[in-house]
Amino acid sequence: MSEVYAARRAQLRERCEANGSEAALVCGEANARYLAGGAPAGSVLLVGPKEDLLVCVSDPFADAALDRPADDLRVMVLPHAEGDPAVAAAERAVAAGAGSIAVEEHHLTVARHRAVRSVAPRMRLHDLGTAVEQQRVVKDDEEISWLRISAEIADQALGELLESILVGRTERHLALELERRLVDHGAAGPAFPTSVGTGPNSGRAGHVPSDRRVEEGDFLSVCLGADYRGYRSEIARTFVIGTSPADWQIELYEQVFAAQRAGREALAPGRSYRDVDRAARVVLEAAGHGERLGPRMGHGVGLENDEDPRLAPSAMGKLDACVPVTVDPGVHLPGRGGVRIDDTLVVRPEADGGPELLTITTKELLAL
Amino acid sequence: MSEVYAARRAQLRERCEANGSEAALVCGEANARYLAGGAPAGSVLLVGPKEDLLVCVSDPFADAALDRPADDLRVMVLPHAEGDPAVAAAERAVAAGAGSIAVEEHHLTVARHRAVRSVAPRMRLHDLGTAVEQQRVVKDDEEISWLRISAEIADQALGELLESILVGRTERHLALELERRLVDHGAAGPAFPTSVGTGPNSGRAGHVPSDRRVEEGDFLSVCLGADYRGYRSEIARTFVIGTSPADWQIELYEQVFAAQRAGREALAPGRSYRDVDRAARVVLEAAGHGERLGPRMGHGVGLENDEDPRLAPSAMGKLDACVPVTVDPGVHLPGRGGVRIDDTLVVRPEADGGPELLTITTKELLAL
Repeated sequence: MSEVYAARRAQLRERCEANGSEAALVCGEANARYLAGGAPAGSVLLVGPKEDLLVCVSDPFADAALDRPADDLRVMVLPHAEGDPAVAAAERAVAAGAGSIAVEEHHLTVARHRAVRSVAPRMRLHDLGTAVEQQRVVKDDEEISWLRISAEIADQALGELLESILVGRTERHLALELERRLVDHGAAGPAFPTSVGTGPNSGRAGHVPSDRRVEEGDFLSVCLGADYRGYRSEIARTFVIGTSPADWQIELYEQVFAAQRAGREALAPGRSYRDVDRAARVVLEAAGHGERLGPRMGHGVGLENDEDPRLAPSAMGKLDACVPVTVDPGVHLPGRGGVRIDDTLVVRPEADGGPELLTITTKELLAL
Repeated sequence: MSEVYAARRAQLRERCEANGSEAALVCGEANARYLAGGAPAGSVLLVGPKEDLLVCVSDPFADAALDRPADDLRVMVLPHAEGDPAVAAAERAVAAGAGSIAVEEHHLTVARHRAVRSVAPRMRLHDLGTAVEQQRVVKDDEEISWLRISAEIADQALGELLESILVGRTERHLALELERRLVDHGAAGPAFPTSVGTGPNSGRAGHVPSDRRVEEGDFLSVCLGADYRGYRSEIARTFVIGTSPADWQIELYEQVFAAQRAGREALAPGRSYRDVDRAARVVLEAAGHGERLGPRMGHGVGLENDEDPRLAPSAMGKLDACVPVTVDPGVHLPGRGGVRIDDTLVVRPEADGGPELLTITTKELLAL
């Protein structure tokens, strides 16, 4: 187990040395967790010249609900949760004789950066940039197995909801019930705030559930995910409430479905991020929805629900095998509602059967 | 309504001018919301030399579930949620001819600060520090009325839980049920992740609910709060499961209760923060629990669950009237469990009857 995390830290250490940094200060929570194996919120990981140290504000061994750091990793718990773990870690780097250290300038506030500098005045501070985020893009088999379980849990929670009575219930309550079911099925919690949109709210990305109640004839769009061992898949589906969907609903659904399928079919190792975005986007542009589309047609998932790669028109880079991504186009017609269809898939080479679909709930337009 | 927010921004503007800044860039989410009246997550507020502008990544008027910005406030929504609102706001400040701007260096990352500087190379960037946080400490009548409702909701949710069967249910499920009940009673959601600790987990501050099930003889400690209009009260209670508590449970409960009462009784305008901490702390130190105490015996509540003032040994400052705070001592005995008792109160002068207790659930040691 712990070899995995030691290897990840060794890879980062090499990267730092190549860039002239003797140590790295990892403040991004998901980044620290990725390299440490487990880390309480607010922890900072020092990947040091001599040894690595996880500085925590709460004791990771005292809390049964937390994933624990790898056994071989030294852990320091700040007494009474006082002080800044980043500062404590920097002090250790100085003590270890590091002359330069790379920090994550996109995670560290100006005030914390100044505090770090104040305890390490002679140390050169470099920008680690998104080195750890990039390291996290391609997942190993265990990470993918956890995402697979995360997706199964979300499928189960969603499947159960579809069997219950929906008319008359509020978006807020449907979202809460879904989150309870996620936990029933073994999730640590929701991967992100569950979004439920009804009627005019349906199809809006990241819609915050309101007190609006489900009505006959509504579109109902649901976006949820399960946190399993910290890994976060994502699924969105849109349904129609009542016996038969209206013509405009059928038409819009078919357009979004076609776009989402085109995006899924574009997933392959070596394919550029923007190509995947383009494949889904053109379908909806052709249908006249170009102005209503979000900035991207999908994104990576892992320890964060929304991580690299971004499948967007301006994104640089190409897909690799074993990269889990979402394909999640949606169209919202102001005042009427909309459709969102979102799957989590793992990029696989054609020889292995192409993209692996993790979220298997049907994408037929169901009338509930 | 919107006059309130305009007045808050005017106060900040005066403060900035006094410190030689022509504008302020407010990136802290609660700070932006406090000054704007409502703001979607990620919004940045420019309190400008000529006019104020809220820059959002999503449209606050399209989402029924969001509190809307004050009517008189100009709002700019970034197309497709692209770009950094702080950068867009800084560009507007430059266009407005501001020569200097104060930024919240404790909220802005080094990378964002650099991005802001790059679009405003000639502008002097100062540190706004915690000016807005300080402005938020004393609440107006409306803010206190929202906290009062928030506390009522938490009392109701807790009261209902106590009437249900607890033995055999997991910490995770009890926490989820409490959060559902908060919403049932009108909360937008939980004020913070609900903490439920049983047996050896009881009494641990911020314990993350696990799969441990409630057993006969357990201490059960619960900490929850409701988000009402963005305002977040906090309550914690500890109960015993079964017919009669053990002697050590009664003794520990009485010690924590005495400390919590001493802290509550110390709340008065003009009383120093550290005095309140001291009043509660000495009781538990005398009982031999000094080493097991957290860094503080209470904290402010408002738009954030944990905000200024900090009631801690090293805290500087004195309480004012109309400052809502928690008094939340707790003791956890490793392996055995512990007790946490937490109320939200509003500091009031003696003439007005002293501190106003918002969370009214009984603090007797109930055997459930």
